[in-house]
Amino acid sequence: MLIVQKYGGTSVGTLERIEAVAQRVIKTKNEGHDVAVIVSAMSGVTNQLIEQAEFFTKTPIGREMDVLLSSGERVTSALLAIALNAKGYAAIAFSGRGAGIVTDNFHTKARIVSIDPKSMQEALKQGKIVVVAGFQGISTAGEVTTLGRGGSDLSAVAVAGALNADLCEIYTDVDGVYTTDPRIEPKAKKLDRISYDEMLELASLGAKVLQNRSVELAKKLNVNLVTRSSFNDHEGTLITGEEKMEDAVISGIALDKNQARITIRNVEDRPGVAAEIFSALASKEINVDMIVQNIGRNGETNLGFTVPQNELETAYRVMKEVNPNPNSIIESDADIVKVSLVGVGMKSHSGIASKAFKTLADEGINIQMISTSEIKISMIVEAKYGELAVRALHKAYDLDK
Amino acid sequence: MLIVQKYGGTSVGTLERIEAVAQRVIKTKNEGHDVAVIVSAMSGVTNQLIEQAEFFTKTPIGREMDVLLSSGERVTSALLAIALNAKGYAAIAFSGRGAGIVTDNFHTKARIVSIDPKSMQEALKQGKIVVVAGFQGISTAGEVTTLGRGGSDLSAVAVAGALNADLCEIYTDVDGVYTTDPRIEPKAKKLDRISYDEMLELASLGAKVLQNRSVELAKKLNVNLVTRSSFNDHEGTLITGEEKMEDAVISGIALDKNQARITIRNVEDRPGVAAEIFSALASKEINVDMIVQNIGRNGETNLGFTVPQNELETAYRVMKEVNPNPNSIIESDADIVKVSLVGVGMKSHSGIASKAFKTLADEGINIQMISTSEIKISMIVEAKYGELAVRALHKAYDLDK
Repeated sequence: MLIVQKYGGTSVGTLERIEAVAQRVIKTKNEGHDVAVIVSAMSGVTNQLIEQAEFFTKTPIGREMDVLLSSGERVTSALLAIALNAKGYAAIAFSGRGAGIVTDNFHTKARIVSIDPKSMQEALKQGKIVVVAGFQGISTAGEVTTLGRGGSDLSAVAVAGALNADLCEIYTDVDGVYTTDPRIEPKAKKLDRISYDEMLELASLGAKVLQNRSVELAKKLNVNLVTRSSFNDHEGTLITGEEKMEDAVISGIALDKNQARITIRNVEDRPGVAAEIFSALASKEINVDMIVQNIGRNGETNLGFTVPQNELETAYRVMKEVNPNPNSIIESDADIVKVSLVGVGMKSHSGIASKAFKTLADEGINIQMISTSEIKISMIVEAKYGELAVRALHKAYDLDK
Repeated sequence: MLIVQKYGGTSVGTLERIEAVAQRVIKTKNEGHDVAVIVSAMSGVTNQLIEQAEFFTKTPIGREMDVLLSSGERVTSALLAIALNAKGYAAIAFSGRGAGIVTDNFHTKARIVSIDPKSMQEALKQGKIVVVAGFQGISTAGEVTTLGRGGSDLSAVAVAGALNADLCEIYTDVDGVYTTDPRIEPKAKKLDRISYDEMLELASLGAKVLQNRSVELAKKLNVNLVTRSSFNDHEGTLITGEEKMEDAVISGIALDKNQARITIRNVEDRPGVAAEIFSALASKEINVDMIVQNIGRNGETNLGFTVPQNELETAYRVMKEVNPNPNSIIESDADIVKVSLVGVGMKSHSGIASKAFKTLADEGINIQMISTSEIKISMIVEAKYGELAVRALHKAYDLDK
């Protein structure tokens, strides 16, 4: 097999950790696989470089920031290649440029446009371990670029796609994707598999294992992603296409504590009102999440939506300004959380939602808002009931089995 | 004018120092000059990177070492460009590759083979300040290379040559080149000018301002070098061709305490004996400095030479093995120093040497060995007389005037 492995900042955070990564890479190589490794900067390095730049200005120019920031991953790639060679395993370090990773010209948040894998393929053919500095590429104008936060994951997925790798393993300090946060429900189980779409829902709900950009790219390139820990030998979680999934109804439950709710009562029920409201919010760059509107009566309706807690005040002020109706009552509530069930099985199973509502009702938890998608049910409840709701649902759907 | 400025590790050792360098660059720019700046890694960074590599092996492979080591200068170049832009001066950071610096393929000690200055010239034409990461280039095979110790000075001289710069200023933490070490003779004076050849002699005698490779390259490319301090505004020392020199007889006096002497008495006086001895020393990579042989008598002669102190023991053992003559007496003496006078004026002035000998004689200092070149007189004396000899000669040649 050809396996791409990506090691994040904590996994290469010290020289001892890089040594451990070298051992793991060698183990994979010795199992008969070809290996390409993508590395992040050692933990803390990128933030330190940003702080250094900000000594001079809070708005450093992008081209030079990219020269600066790209150095962190280059150092790690060189050190890992040195470590591997020292142990008798031929390894070659590539910068983003060396690996043929071409991006657009948007410095500090470039997007990969193509990869020319020739150099990497040539090295692999020679039996070498390929080590690539993550997070960076070379723009079509020939300048060093960086890919923004989480960029090394993107590098790994894109390299795996370009090399047509069998597997892309993302190593972090957690074991994989869990049915829910183990700090809330100790019986939470690590998932063996999850679909790209489920992972996207869970990630946008605050599961911090992988960023959405990486999962989206993996889905697009049909890359089999595995997220696992570099600190132990546990199997991780495979993130792959739905066709490869078991018949799981619910894969995971997420609790998002960073939500706040605005409700506008007695909104005029005519075309264009919602557009007015949400255009005003968008113009302030407020990220609206759930939107719920009920069928009205007497030409009026109630409109509810959620925003991140730190944007609640601005959103409330914007609503006061827009004032869709003199009779409207605008309420805000920061004391809520969002509980979400995610699972591709919802598509083919009925009764999932009603079971969820009944479970919460049995616990005496009132549901303030409901929003559903093809593979997700989200419910807004009073904040103090959040963890109880997660545990009750976890049990109700047998996720601890 | 087009001025190339090079700032060493201590000159960019902290963010505050980089800020000060930015101010100095801006001052030069505001005086109406075009400026290209070559920077070293912040002091300590290169050693730290070497230590990190040596955590894995004492003999890291060169290609990866160069990826590692080149990052230090890249960081400085980005930070300086960010600082300059923050102050409203357009600046652009180039890596060795970006600056068009092409080297041979000898990793960690590459030599510059050519510079394609197009990118730098284009940026200068746009009124930008060019900031180049020193110490590095790109090999003819397309790989990052580094130039070895003192490499940033070489970068600066080579860039100055390629850009046909009017001046190449090398900023360090000393004010320039002195008539002798001010710690030995407080009346030592900073020289306004010195020729390339004199500087080469002084550098090889231990004056640590500039390495010989840089001076040799400046001579070859006819680059006007200035060495000066980045910590004050004192004028430095101009290192240039002899034709531009004043009629100075002696420019400087150097004291080399790292010498030891071996004398072989009663060497057979026939062709090939010297070759035998020095081939044996060369095969052990012992650096022989002065060699003195007197005309012999009775078919025998005395042969004396000096070596670095830490190579004395090996050299003595090699001499015992070679044993050029059963009658030979081999003596070693580590308790000596070398005092040298350097000056292009020697070429056209007679009596320089005899004045030196008389000066030492007047102080009761016995001269054990003498060696002269076109612009240098070196004398071996007992170690305890070294500093006295320097002071006496400094006065005799009016260097304190």
